[in-house]
Amino acid sequence: MDPADPTAAVAAAAERCSNWGRWGEDDVLGTLNFIDARKRREAATLVREGVSFSLSQRFDADGPQKGWRRRTNPVHTMLDTGTDAEAGVQGFPHGIGGADGVISMPLQCSTQWDGLGHIFDHGRAWNGRRAGDVVTSMGDRLTGIETAASAIATRGVLLDVGRALGENGELPDGFAITPEHLDQTIAAQGPTSSVGRGDVLLVRTGQLARVRREGWGDYAGGDAPGLSFLTADWLHAAEIAGVATDTWGFEVRPNEFHESFQPLHQVAIPHIGLYVGEMWDFEALAAHCRDAKTWEFWLTAAPLPITGAVGSPVNPIAVL
Amino acid sequence: MDPADPTAAVAAAAERCSNWGRWGEDDVLGTLNFIDARKRREAATLVREGVSFSLSQRFDADGPQKGWRRRTNPVHTMLDTGTDAEAGVQGFPHGIGGADGVISMPLQCSTQWDGLGHIFDHGRAWNGRRAGDVVTSMGDRLTGIETAASAIATRGVLLDVGRALGENGELPDGFAITPEHLDQTIAAQGPTSSVGRGDVLLVRTGQLARVRREGWGDYAGGDAPGLSFLTADWLHAAEIAGVATDTWGFEVRPNEFHESFQPLHQVAIPHIGLYVGEMWDFEALAAHCRDAKTWEFWLTAAPLPITGAVGSPVNPIAVL
Amino acid sequence: MDPADPTAAVAAAAERCSNWGRWGEDDVLGTLNFIDARKRREAATLVREGVSFSLSQRFDADGPQKGWRRRTNPVHTMLDTGTDAEAGVQGFPHGIGGADGVISMPLQCSTQWDGLGHIFDHGRAWNGRRAGDVVTSMGDRLTGIETAASAIATRGVLLDVGRALGENGELPDGFAITPEHLDQTIAAQGPTSSVGRGDVLLVRTGQLARVRREGWGDYAGGDAPGLSFLTADWLHAAEIAGVATDTWGFEVRPNEFHESFQPLHQVAIPHIGLYVGEMWDFEALAAHCRDAKTWEFWLTAAPLPITGAVGSPVNPIAVL
Amino acid sequence: MDPADPTAAVAAAAERCSNWGRWGEDDVLGTLNFIDARKRREAATLVREGVSFSLSQRFDADGPQKGWRRRTNPVHTMLDTGTDAEAGVQGFPHGIGGADGVISMPLQCSTQWDGLGHIFDHGRAWNGRRAGDVVTSMGDRLTGIETAASAIATRGVLLDVGRALGENGELPDGFAITPEHLDQTIAAQGPTSSVGRGDVLLVRTGQLARVRREGWGDYAGGDAPGLSFLTADWLHAAEIAGVATDTWGFEVRPNEFHESFQPLHQVAIPHIGLYVGEMWDFEALAAHCRDAKTWEFWLTAAPLPITGAVGSPVNPIAVL
Repeated sequence: MDPADPTAAVAAAAERCSNWGRWGEDDVLGTLNFIDARKRREAATLVREGVSFSLSQRFDADGPQKGWRRRTNPVHTMLDTGTDAEAGVQGFPHGIGGADGVISMPLQCSTQWDGLGHIFDHGRAWNGRRAGDVVTSMGDRLTGIETAASAIATRGVLLDVGRALGENGELPDGFAITPEHLDQTIAAQGPTSSVGRGDVLLVRTGQLARVRREGWGDYAGGDAPGLSFLTADWLHAAEIAGVATDTWGFEVRPNEFHESFQPLHQVAIPHIGLYVGEMWDFEALAAHCRDAKTWEFWLTAAPLPITGAVGSPVNPIAVL
Repeated sequence: MDPADPTAAVAAAAERCSNWGRWGEDDVLGTLNFIDARKRREAATLVREGVSFSLSQRFDADGPQKGWRRRTNPVHTMLDTGTDAEAGVQGFPHGIGGADGVISMPLQCSTQWDGLGHIFDHGRAWNGRRAGDVVTSMGDRLTGIETAASAIATRGVLLDVGRALGENGELPDGFAITPEHLDQTIAAQGPTSSVGRGDVLLVRTGQLARVRREGWGDYAGGDAPGLSFLTADWLHAAEIAGVATDTWGFEVRPNEFHESFQPLHQVAIPHIGLYVGEMWDFEALAAHCRDAKTWEFWLTAAPLPITGAVGSPVNPIAVL
Repeated sequence: MDPADPTAAVAAAAERCSNWGRWGEDDVLGTLNFIDARKRREAATLVREGVSFSLSQRFDADGPQKGWRRRTNPVHTMLDTGTDAEAGVQGFPHGIGGADGVISMPLQCSTQWDGLGHIFDHGRAWNGRRAGDVVTSMGDRLTGIETAASAIATRGVLLDVGRALGENGELPDGFAITPEHLDQTIAAQGPTSSVGRGDVLLVRTGQLARVRREGWGDYAGGDAPGLSFLTADWLHAAEIAGVATDTWGFEVRPNEFHESFQPLHQVAIPHIGLYVGEMWDFEALAAHCRDAKTWEFWLTAAPLPITGAVGSPVNPIAVL
Repeated sequence: MDPADPTAAVAAAAERCSNWGRWGEDDVLGTLNFIDARKRREAATLVREGVSFSLSQRFDADGPQKGWRRRTNPVHTMLDTGTDAEAGVQGFPHGIGGADGVISMPLQCSTQWDGLGHIFDHGRAWNGRRAGDVVTSMGDRLTGIETAASAIATRGVLLDVGRALGENGELPDGFAITPEHLDQTIAAQGPTSSVGRGDVLLVRTGQLARVRREGWGDYAGGDAPGLSFLTADWLHAAEIAGVATDTWGFEVRPNEFHESFQPLHQVAIPHIGLYVGEMWDFEALAAHCRDAKTWEFWLTAAPLPITGAVGSPVNPIAVL
């Protein structure tokens, strides 16, 4: 691939990896179609200990966002409080009091799913539709995240590339994870790390551990380890239902082409139809997997079904 | 119980049902403590078919809220759109385009969990703490919903009281579901409906089906079927981890006392420490359970871990 | 004009009334250009009594919006409260306490100015620009309301058409105010009502008084008295800087063409370049003008300079 | 004053400067009572040239806020856009298209008025009321900013202390403006700078010019020039209606006492009942005043009448 020509590289990868039409012209689910009932039955058998992990960062004002494209951290305010209740100003009878709150947040502010309307390639959305026919300022008319409301309960598999290939469990910023790195990690972790049809693949780089220790810095959009553009074919061939990382943008930063921006997204979302998760927190799960010597689990990662949203915050739950 | 004296009834029920101190003075989880690893292992075996149901309503402007205590429906706006991408105004290189959005919503606007800081009794919160020491305008300092981030993955059991005791599957507004009604429904549905320690109990009244057909009307705060105040002891004795209904407020409306407001909340949340779910959507799940003749399933109902929130929107996923 | 052909009527009126190019091809102010220093000096002499009137409705949850195109009423929440301060939970030294708040609102939710980027005609914005070159999801790049930050301080004149031509001071819904009605009102009110270059014209219909008495009903978008499409030429010829009414949409509703929507906007904003105010409250001012027998005053109607906004809430102040 | 004892200094100043009861026990306007009709008549005569200045910063994401007490910069999103209109996806007839937006912002995020419910002293609000009786999470029940909707149209006078006493027109951070500095500036500027009953006093420090040149830095809450605590008596004796500066917090930072926070606020707002403006932009006005050799003007600074708000964004307009 020519680092000076991202356009050509994207076009070629899109041609090789396209799933347009694979599930019919009306399809709105993309790779979520790979999850079927049999997959779920098998995945549920992975609950052997009965321990549960949240893979979500906390949603609050101390998040990583710094305003890029108006993405801010969540703002949580209160409508009713315990101090008001104690002060007796709420107007309720027989001593009952209450507290309520409000949240305002970009849907891409923290742990999230990118939906299929999140990224376009030359004005084309998933399955070949015109971007402007799909996502207007009214939202996504066709592939809104609500279409995935019940789908994402399946096998999850964690590839701790940071541990397998990094120092002290962390890859440096700018480290491009290639297909070979993924395969090496699978080999190092053993057979519970096999990746296949209908799985959600979780790739830990260790960057989240680093920014927790050192401060957010440019976590939101700056340099980061992540998947190489070269993984497009691997992700496509594996027939996974989704992929998620512990980084802001899932692919390596800086991107591998000159003057480019997230070229792997441009192939993965509109052409492969792949659900992409970002800013997930694998720290506790990875520690447990390492001790338990197993890297597979039952994963439920249910987006909030916000009608017409091109993504959603999510609290993914892994149980093994 | 004297319908003219809700204060006395609440006090008596609180005395009988209190779990204060049961899990130590620092406890923040309440009845979620009933979910343990063994429970999860057993619950996962309920995944027999591999079918998955979302129990969430859609989050959008067409929701039920009418402004009571400033609860509005969600407002979803776009930061970037497909029309902008097609128009070439986004400033990205090599043909990539994107769409992003923002959500602003009360945390109690649609399908939700009430956290333990949501309701107080005479200025006291869960475990006997002072309400004003727990929930200020900065949020819940101790029992915020983020404390439950990983907990709620367990057995769910659906009691379709609307079907068992109503006409055409629906209880009328004002119908108070008593312990006897719960027991009758269990008996009618059979042994897969048993309710016990660590379960999340789902009670379908059918009201949501009715308002879907007839319009929201006063769904948000008006008359509704729901649990009778008399169920407080039953809910306590069953040692369930949580309870959810398809109604706005979980308990029967109008409330069963004169000039009262949600007295069962006043016992259930601060005294029992019970997680309460509201506005859940059981329609598709109930139809499936009826056909499959089983009413138990694996349930993951993960709140968004919004730091300090007294509740959270949730997309509960039932798999059986 | 043919009520079956709004397209032709709009095109003809646009042709007659166009100010495109009048103030140069880079102009962003439209009719605000009519306000000059001399106008301001003369207008300031209208402060004779020294009494001041706010022409703004209150911004709160009890407003008229019902969700049309996601326009909601304002949501005001608190970040810090007096109850918290009294409870001593704020963490400030030496006894200081504070209260802070947040507002979330559509810019067109209540008393407002429509900016020049608010309405387009066949994809064309003010001065002939392409709509998509002016207003993207990033906002208005050229004619954002911040460009008018200092401009709107001038003579205001109130035409109380409701009083002059209505019953009990109110025009019925559907009443189309024609140029003749405006002239009749000026004649009835006397010479202080003359309308000319650089003025902001305020037209009271009385609808706001009616909905205050009877409830909002369909104030936001339903039937209303208002300016007839036939006033386009009158508004243009008068060389006013702006026009505002006490109704939701400034022009008569239902609109005067079959299957049409706000055709006068389509001429006034993109072609005349006219600033349009809506939902202003003239009740107290009108009562005073009636008693004082003068209908002109110093008017300051300063939009919040929200960068790139196509309109703004405003608290207009009339002093006479 | 003892820098180690802010509590005593505040108590003493509060005792000397208190206006509690001055306008009756029901008063909600504080020093705005000093503005009367005669004042307005005189002030309007200051419009001699007819030039108008906005004293507001722009409201957008590039503002100074960094999250202190959840104060963020404004978030402006679009509900409808020109790109959508051009793409023909809005569903309107006869070629009309539109754009709409939404704003979400803390009321103290940029150019603003602090209302009388904004600051408390030992749990007491303006006029001696209990803070918790005035401001709950429902907002300010008594002294909400809507009470000032029509009041603030009066004489404004600019004291450009930065120019009179600073280098290159700017006071350094930490510079405490004393009564003597105010008097020196008045003397230097001449008789148009006299400050008296009913005026709104504008104090330019030059800090805004500096941060415009050098970047926001810690403008929001960090070190800054500003009024000394010693000005409390001067502000009280002058019987001004309000005071505003071009800094975040009106008083000098760091504050002049050890371990203190905004002690002048603690006297000025709850005890004097003084309206305080912050983050105003005097740059263009100051340049004009310098050239015109006059420092007085007609000022309209109308808050948005947000019901129950303890402050409001404002676009103040000076005309001279």
